[in-house]
Amino acid sequence: MNKLRIIIDMDDVLADTNRKILDNFNRINGMELTRDFFKGRSFYDYVHQYNYEPVRQKLFEPGFFADIEVMEDAVEVVRALHEKHEVFIVSAAMEFPNSLIDKYHWLSRHFPFISWQNIAFCGDKRIVSGDVMIDDHEKNLKTFRGEALLFDAMHNQTVTGYQRVMNWKEVYDRFI
Amino acid sequence: MNKLRIIIDMDDVLADTNRKILDNFNRINGMELTRDFFKGRSFYDYVHQYNYEPVRQKLFEPGFFADIEVMEDAVEVVRALHEKHEVFIVSAAMEFPNSLIDKYHWLSRHFPFISWQNIAFCGDKRIVSGDVMIDDHEKNLKTFRGEALLFDAMHNQTVTGYQRVMNWKEVYDRFI
Repeated sequence: MNKLRIIIDMDDVLADTNRKILDNFNRINGMELTRDFFKGRSFYDYVHQYNYEPVRQKLFEPGFFADIEVMEDAVEVVRALHEKHEVFIVSAAMEFPNSLIDKYHWLSRHFPFISWQNIAFCGDKRIVSGDVMIDDHEKNLKTFRGEALLFDAMHNQTVTGYQRVMNWKEVYDRFI
Repeated sequence: MNKLRIIIDMDDVLADTNRKILDNFNRINGMELTRDFFKGRSFYDYVHQYNYEPVRQKLFEPGFFADIEVMEDAVEVVRALHEKHEVFIVSAAMEFPNSLIDKYHWLSRHFPFISWQNIAFCGDKRIVSGDVMIDDHEKNLKTFRGEALLFDAMHNQTVTGYQRVMNWKEVYDRFI
């Protein structure tokens, strides 16, 4: 396989941001929903029937992104991809300016083998080019000119038209 | 003219970072060099004969990028470009992680008409695509596939092989 330029998203691809969002949603609304509840359901349509704005507001707070858990197998598979291909971590962090430094330190801590040269925080990902993009949001994938892979997430269950990868093991099998 | 995607750098293109760097260099080394001194001279070759490391270290400090002056005519010309074309501000800020939030606020203050969607902070600019890139560093321009414009700066006087623009008025005349 040729060396590929692989563009990897952070939230809900490397970082289990949804776990924290769902915990906050449950606490604020006195509910006990699990991730599985959203299989085949539109997450955003559902949660907007409840008190979701304070959940979203938490994303703007300094520190929100600092302690998010790493997705299962992400470190090992990204390390293998980095050794074989050219990996760039690209996060649409600009919407949450206080997340910028948190995300930088989070990457340094969990993915120290990724240098600052290979990190980008952007707004719209339309300007990003590469061979492969792994992302959980259709809005990021739809303008990408390479191979677009939708990383399975609680909030993208109703998205169709993309090759879906369920976890990092599947990414490993595809590119290593 | 078609609507172009124009990628604009920050330091020494929108922001007069060199003025602050030269002031620091002069103060630390007890010198009184002006920008004109570097016409036809390699800035880095010259300053590395003196005490330059503490000058460079200042770029890593929180606040360094917060109060940099805006380049002459930059606001007016970027506003005109933004109205006619599609402007993205792309800064290789990742080398200086403490600059991330300073740069975000600096842009909000001086270029409030540029939304967060149209800002990107990256390491290596190889992943950025567009029709035009305006940048003061050859390393950023050399892998760009569109029209690459070298913005004249104290430290790029010996760079050849690129179309050089001397100031924002020239950019205006070219694209408006």
